[in-house]
Amino acid sequence: MNVNSSGSPLSADHVQEARARIAPYAHRTPVLTCSAIDLKAEASVFFKCENFQKTGSFKFRGACNAVASLSEAKRVKGVVTHSSGNYAQALALAARLHMTPAFVVMPENASDIKKQATAGYGASITLCTPTHAGRHEAAERIREATGATFLSPYDDARVIAGQGTACMELIEEIAGLDLILAPVGGGGLLSGTLLAAKHMLPSVEVIGCEPAGADDAARSLQTGKRIVDFTPHTIADGLRTPLGELTFPIIRDGVDGIVLVSEADILHAMRFVWERMKILIEPSSAVAVAPLLNGTIKTSKRRIGVILSGGNVDLTAFFTLLEGTL
Amino acid sequence: MNVNSSGSPLSADHVQEARARIAPYAHRTPVLTCSAIDLKAEASVFFKCENFQKTGSFKFRGACNAVASLSEAKRVKGVVTHSSGNYAQALALAARLHMTPAFVVMPENASDIKKQATAGYGASITLCTPTHAGRHEAAERIREATGATFLSPYDDARVIAGQGTACMELIEEIAGLDLILAPVGGGGLLSGTLLAAKHMLPSVEVIGCEPAGADDAARSLQTGKRIVDFTPHTIADGLRTPLGELTFPIIRDGVDGIVLVSEADILHAMRFVWERMKILIEPSSAVAVAPLLNGTIKTSKRRIGVILSGGNVDLTAFFTLLEGTL
Repeated sequence: MNVNSSGSPLSADHVQEARARIAPYAHRTPVLTCSAIDLKAEASVFFKCENFQKTGSFKFRGACNAVASLSEAKRVKGVVTHSSGNYAQALALAARLHMTPAFVVMPENASDIKKQATAGYGASITLCTPTHAGRHEAAERIREATGATFLSPYDDARVIAGQGTACMELIEEIAGLDLILAPVGGGGLLSGTLLAAKHMLPSVEVIGCEPAGADDAARSLQTGKRIVDFTPHTIADGLRTPLGELTFPIIRDGVDGIVLVSEADILHAMRFVWERMKILIEPSSAVAVAPLLNGTIKTSKRRIGVILSGGNVDLTAFFTLLEGTL
Repeated sequence: MNVNSSGSPLSADHVQEARARIAPYAHRTPVLTCSAIDLKAEASVFFKCENFQKTGSFKFRGACNAVASLSEAKRVKGVVTHSSGNYAQALALAARLHMTPAFVVMPENASDIKKQATAGYGASITLCTPTHAGRHEAAERIREATGATFLSPYDDARVIAGQGTACMELIEEIAGLDLILAPVGGGGLLSGTLLAAKHMLPSVEVIGCEPAGADDAARSLQTGKRIVDFTPHTIADGLRTPLGELTFPIIRDGVDGIVLVSEADILHAMRFVWERMKILIEPSSAVAVAPLLNGTIKTSKRRIGVILSGGNVDLTAFFTLLEGTL
């Protein structure tokens, strides 16, 4: 059994509660299809487009649920986290919508675009040395000084429950799914997806999609022991983190498999989606599309749901190229 | 009065007929909104997403209507055009769906991606020297040899009527529009938009959006004489053509204005849409977004429809960059 912060087992009920809690704030994102991908996979594929979610990724769901779950007394003191990516923006906006101060620790080498986006949502940003220790220490100092509540990007029951709402909406909208694909990094999205999917549709298969260059989830499941010490090598910047203490057992007990994806296949899938669907997805999302295109899983004649986790891509280099052609 | 190929005035009735004719083949594309753009423009903006249309642009509507309008005897002999861009793919697919041979003349320096896409839809491709004369001669030779019907990308009543169906759908879906923005190149889209809009919503203002580096439409309206001889300098590759004999009078008599857009503003608008809306639009589409962001037209408190004409962008350079980082 997985236990949330209040001591009760984490279940689909918590996802349902999260859904009601975030409904006034989060987008119900559209589900898109693509005939070119259906043709390739010989399947009916349904893409849950969290790239269209507020702040550009599913992370807003979990952050919003976590902030909305805080008592008024805690909300006044604010929330603190460390993130260089999508969770920083998500928590910043979730906090602002709840009139809660947000303190975000970012590594000093984070891109200006990400710092600006996070600051744009009203968060106070503290730069730290770009190491795990540096991040934790900075966040801890802020927590002590302000009394703010620390909210992990994925290893938090409220966050996990929030992430499950995307899959809940997908299953409600699309009947008869045989298989659901979701990327796995820290495991928040995959855990939430499992809670929702296995409760609503017990027969559905759920597969986590992971970069081969950051295959800690696959190895953790093989060895039965959570691997936390590894050096990721992947362009999928959202999937470089280890599984959490909460997410590991949920995934271990519920997932039907982890499929590994090469860097070349990540980029191929990303380009395929951009060119054919005309939507922007980030590399971490492409990890869950690649298995539809490269033959590593059985897709033929199946109804497949894919959680497109986000669309935050740094386009500076591309537009610098285009400006150069003017 | 504008006269179509059958000698009758071209009107919203033709757009309505086109709509019925292409309904089995074309997507009814979604209308999206973007709070960041609404905020900037202090307006309610509704984007008609023809980038999600089949073959990635509105061109499919006109091509499909033109092919479907042909007699069975003509259809058997096929269709021929010259195009290096979106119309090539659009006509190729429209022809294939009607089991009609398609002959497309493309300049020999057209990109491999465009040649492949057009060939992928089953068209026979003939390469020509990349001049106006070269294109016309090659198309004419094919027409004579095969008996195929020549279909202009924009200067054809059936094509114009087809392009108007996008605006017709938009007005049906979104009530009370004050202003509609559409890009103008050859004028097919803007002409069709005017036919639909001014009939359905006589009070609506329709503004054509044109690159300052290919401002022939603006100058043609100023002088009252269609300018055909000019050298375009714009990244908006769909808008480099002069107005046609049919489209010029429709635009001259109906449009409320032409707004010119700089190259820098085109790229800025394109990036804004990619980053905030997470959808791919091509530079020609961004020309109709830029006036919402740069203050050149009055947008405040208005309900504004924008035809996002297409999403076909060559991503080779960008993905080559990304591959280099692996």
